[in-house]
Amino acid sequence: MQDGVVGVDLGGTYTKFGLVTKEGDLLAYDIIPTNSSIRYQQFFKELLSHIQELQSSLDKPLNLRGIGIGAPTGNTRDGTIESASNLEWDNHVPIVEVFEEYTNLPAILVNDANASALGELLYGVAKGMENFVSITLGTGLGCGIVVNGELVMGKQGHAGEIGHTTVFHNGRECSCGRTGCVETYVSAPGIVTTVHELLAENGLTSTLRNITDKDLDAREITQAALAGDKVALEAFEYTGQILGLKLADMVACLNPEAIVISGGLAKAGSLILEPAKQNMEKHLLDIFKNKVDVLTSDLSEKNIAILGAAASIWKELERRDAAVYEGEKIKE
Amino acid sequence: MQDGVVGVDLGGTYTKFGLVTKEGDLLAYDIIPTNSSIRYQQFFKELLSHIQELQSSLDKPLNLRGIGIGAPTGNTRDGTIESASNLEWDNHVPIVEVFEEYTNLPAILVNDANASALGELLYGVAKGMENFVSITLGTGLGCGIVVNGELVMGKQGHAGEIGHTTVFHNGRECSCGRTGCVETYVSAPGIVTTVHELLAENGLTSTLRNITDKDLDAREITQAALAGDKVALEAFEYTGQILGLKLADMVACLNPEAIVISGGLAKAGSLILEPAKQNMEKHLLDIFKNKVDVLTSDLSEKNIAILGAAASIWKELERRDAAVYEGEKIKE
Repeated sequence: MQDGVVGVDLGGTYTKFGLVTKEGDLLAYDIIPTNSSIRYQQFFKELLSHIQELQSSLDKPLNLRGIGIGAPTGNTRDGTIESASNLEWDNHVPIVEVFEEYTNLPAILVNDANASALGELLYGVAKGMENFVSITLGTGLGCGIVVNGELVMGKQGHAGEIGHTTVFHNGRECSCGRTGCVETYVSAPGIVTTVHELLAENGLTSTLRNITDKDLDAREITQAALAGDKVALEAFEYTGQILGLKLADMVACLNPEAIVISGGLAKAGSLILEPAKQNMEKHLLDIFKNKVDVLTSDLSEKNIAILGAAASIWKELERRDAAVYEGEKIKE
Repeated sequence: MQDGVVGVDLGGTYTKFGLVTKEGDLLAYDIIPTNSSIRYQQFFKELLSHIQELQSSLDKPLNLRGIGIGAPTGNTRDGTIESASNLEWDNHVPIVEVFEEYTNLPAILVNDANASALGELLYGVAKGMENFVSITLGTGLGCGIVVNGELVMGKQGHAGEIGHTTVFHNGRECSCGRTGCVETYVSAPGIVTTVHELLAENGLTSTLRNITDKDLDAREITQAALAGDKVALEAFEYTGQILGLKLADMVACLNPEAIVISGGLAKAGSLILEPAKQNMEKHLLDIFKNKVDVLTSDLSEKNIAILGAAASIWKELERRDAAVYEGEKIKE
């Protein structure tokens, strides 16, 4: 019987889940609304019955080995979702404990940025790389770091918060309470702010002036830039430059083989990547110049969250197998 | 027979070496001038005969397991010293190859910042920690990073170059060709520059005005600060604040358990550490506040280079033993 795992992407509005082989084949998937108005125990029971249905729908039986769950504030170290602002449950939902109890299968929880990094490591453009950095440009700047083939989690499980490192002292105010965080510049809301600033500062004509504040978003800016709008192009140039500066810092710190960019803003492609690469190279030490690839993810955005969650449990199963073997070695 | 390794600290002027047990006991050590006017093969042969003498001088015989060499531009990945400006040898001295050939013992080369980190991990205040950052404040800002109990080297072996990450755009010119590197502020030469700027900018009386430019160094500034000199104190405050800002970035990126500070400038103790800690905490995300220890190294500066080099080969021997075991597992 073929082995497989469940990958779950627990979002504020929807929960997506799929059955994934070790090679990254998504055999089946489904989506249900995330209902956090009922007790989490109840919701997870419902989710599990949907997963069972999915498993029954397969032509060939699948031997489920474990469950990987990705969630925005998921903490791998303690297996809980912490203060997720878009879920009505308590501050600490012990999701790993609950899943392991209900299924008797190993479970692991990762945050979405780390899930993306593991997805790239097992199934994406970073397949087999020992050292790389994965950056997701969405409503924030998420980051997952792989060193020596393993995810960097840090003491509390919060490593990779580079979105909240400083780029300009006394720069833009961030929702985290700090100022000058790179995320306030390099993210979907960040580029919207940049466009607002550019429109206020210069007299260039721009199609973006015709869009109400409420409707001005990264997608509109991308479309305008692709159509040649000067303000939109300048906004991408500026955003890319700041990203490049931060990438140079990351390279100096970690000397990765590659940096993989994903997320909504990455859809603008070379509009953001070219200035990012150029400014990164400009700010690199000589020893690093022309040594680091900046790649865009080739995993479809629809699947990356499920695949990343699945990758996290495949990695964990591998680690547990090795630990069991170490244990046997000690017993000998 | 007791096991031991050789720790070698290859400096531009002197080469220090010692015999070190797994527990970090420095059984014996010696020092010879580094003679790079002769061929490196010749110098290393001489060094090895001194090491044999040292071994013969011990009361009890020692079973040598390997040799760890620390050098400022040592690259672990390829085992060569690269373009060391204070050595007259060629650009690429294949030091590991030469030592292994002459001794039939495993050898490893590490740069001085990584040697310090490994010394702290095996014998110092970071003993047993899985995740920490070691920072050495000397003529530059050196950094060694430990993640999941292992040194972070990166693709080419150059990870940890955080001295050359940006703190102020268009800031001070760095010898690396960039501007605004943290090392131009937080290092012995950096604080000297700060004192020069302060003396030029303000009219405060200062004993440092009586020192010629040639003689003004970090030690003089430390002594003046300890004696209450206002300019010296302000220079330490400023240096510490910038260090703290960079530490906050490192914490966000790596979520370490602790940061260990060593090197000449660390001798100023709380003069630099207090503003560093305060500014780090100020710039940390809430999830990291009061969670990261900032520690000063308790390894003596005299021994840390030898102990760090010894630690690197003990770590390597451990890794090779595990790899051999993995090999046996595959053969089974």
